Amino acid sequence: MSIITVIGSGQMGSALAFPLCDNGHTVRLVGSPLDGEIIKRIALDTYHPTLKRTLPQGVEAYDLSMLEVALEGAELIVGGVSSFGLDWFKDDIIPRLPQGVPVLSVTKGMVDLEDGSLVSYPEVYEGSTDKRISFNAIGGPCTSYELADRDYTCVSFCGRDIEELEQIRALFATDYYNVGVSVDVRGVECAVAMKNAYALAVSLAIGMSYKREGRELEHYNSQAALFYQSVTEMRRLLKLCGGGEDNIALGAGDLYVTVFGGRTRKIGTLLGTGMPLDEALERLNGVTLESLVIAKRTNAAVKRLIAAGKVAPEDFPLLLHVGEILDGQRVNIPWKSFKM
Amino acid sequence: MSIITVIGSGQMGSALAFPLCDNGHTVRLVGSPLDGEIIKRIALDTYHPTLKRTLPQGVEAYDLSMLEVALEGAELIVGGVSSFGLDWFKDDIIPRLPQGVPVLSVTKGMVDLEDGSLVSYPEVYEGSTDKRISFNAIGGPCTSYELADRDYTCVSFCGRDIEELEQIRALFATDYYNVGVSVDVRGVECAVAMKNAYALAVSLAIGMSYKREGRELEHYNSQAALFYQSVTEMRRLLKLCGGGEDNIALGAGDLYVTVFGGRTRKIGTLLGTGMPLDEALERLNGVTLESLVIAKRTNAAVKRLIAAGKVAPEDFPLLLHVGEILDGQRVNIPWKSFKM
Repeated sequence: MSIITVIGSGQMGSALAFPLCDNGHTVRLVGSPLDGEIIKRIALDTYHPTLKRTLPQGVEAYDLSMLEVALEGAELIVGGVSSFGLDWFKDDIIPRLPQGVPVLSVTKGMVDLEDGSLVSYPEVYEGSTDKRISFNAIGGPCTSYELADRDYTCVSFCGRDIEELEQIRALFATDYYNVGVSVDVRGVECAVAMKNAYALAVSLAIGMSYKREGRELEHYNSQAALFYQSVTEMRRLLKLCGGGEDNIALGAGDLYVTVFGGRTRKIGTLLGTGMPLDEALERLNGVTLESLVIAKRTNAAVKRLIAAGKVAPEDFPLLLHVGEILDGQRVNIPWKSFKM
Repeated sequence: MSIITVIGSGQMGSALAFPLCDNGHTVRLVGSPLDGEIIKRIALDTYHPTLKRTLPQGVEAYDLSMLEVALEGAELIVGGVSSFGLDWFKDDIIPRLPQGVPVLSVTKGMVDLEDGSLVSYPEVYEGSTDKRISFNAIGGPCTSYELADRDYTCVSFCGRDIEELEQIRALFATDYYNVGVSVDVRGVECAVAMKNAYALAVSLAIGMSYKREGRELEHYNSQAALFYQSVTEMRRLLKLCGGGEDNIALGAGDLYVTVFGGRTRKIGTLLGTGMPLDEALERLNGVTLESLVIAKRTNAAVKRLIAAGKVAPEDFPLLLHVGEILDGQRVNIPWKSFKM
């Protein structure tokens, strides 16, 4: 049995304790500077207040000040931060990590460079250090609540070394947590990062339907039309990122689960009713909207590529409209620009 | 303004009257031998009893005996039958059609030939006659109820002649009914035919979740995992059919709407609880389950290709399990055979 140290005790990082502990491993959860209350509560009675689940036997909670103790003897380090914690993990944590112990990151998203290119977090981490650490990542459709409830889940672990990925997979795989491996880091990460902007886009149709009906009745033709357009544009983005085209299946699966997954759906639905962004944000006050940050980032990258003449705006009408909405415009889906 | 004659007055054929009449055209609905009660009711007060909507002004109902009258002066003929009506349309109707008037078919599905190949309905119709008639078809995510409610909908009209397709499109296109055109008949039809088997597959996860929870609570990780695997296998089927790979977006959109669209979801959910097929069919007694026929047909074609050594069974684990369920086995998703 092994020790796995998870840095960042948010919902997804903590939910991974379920398959790990079911396999008999010890999971050391280390709180980020934002996780003080979570770690205190877990130390008290193993209840995770934002995941809203009691964590399984085998979980130990550590304050960040105890990081080096928590890393002692670890076979794997999980980077459990959201994309807001990217810089913190890169600047404050990686310098404190031991060499030779692989890192597996749960953070979804891409970083847009000045030239419009999008790179994955494992690549950002790699570029930030001279240490001999392999950076891997998890992609695929998985909400933390359902993983904690042991719903059947299929994900992909991506990294450069297939043998190491197989070893990491062996720590996690259970009958309900199915793990594939891929060396196409750019493809996997790009596919799952895209889905944030597009889950917002598909959710717009929910709000449009609510508004028209005057009650919470959903129509699906319009959601499906936006799902169609999303898959079409995601395939183009995948190509732009240099990811393998097979990854569109991961992206479509992740889009599906995200449309039903809570926060992105909520903001998309509100915006779909015609509510302006600031009012919608106020309505959801206090909720972390990582998806908006990722959507803006993807938009920024595509706009740079358009400015450089590398792609045409008519290839991304839905993404660009999401960008307009995030800039304050009201919803007005450009249906006629979708080429079925 | 034009006359459009719709042969077969089921839900989808009749729902097309909404965009057509909104554009000012006259729609002549001709009942199939199964549509007697529907036609009587429409003639009485324009209410469509299975679509459960009052049809718009501009619709006229015709008994089948009046087919030739209904065809007089028509600019377009719509084949409005389900796949159960394929042979009837081919053998009884096509010989009675005038030459030179294009046909647009709403029937989704493919026909499996002896050698395992799958061909589209327009191709079957073409091969059945020497008449000079162009056969076109509608693909894409669209449920009839929502089209009748004028929800935003995007579909693709496919056929051989792009100019003729543009003319047909002009009859239908409204602000809510968005129509693209494609000359990749095989690709469009294959993409949307596949979705029946896979919508059943994704719905299995709903029943599995209900069973585990003991109440109607859905989990989405497992649905998304099956959605992922469905898109993966649909891409392979599309290639086998010789359809363009871009059509996967149409297939994914159609899969999305079908998972929410009623009958396929109902049978999949029941089967997902572990109920055997015969009991599930009894529970849904009387409901037309076209999707099961199409799912069986796709299965049969893939099995023939496997027997011929042209494809490997490990490329279609989900489709083959759907086939097993339709042969009477209980649900037991082969998670480990999905390669993420």
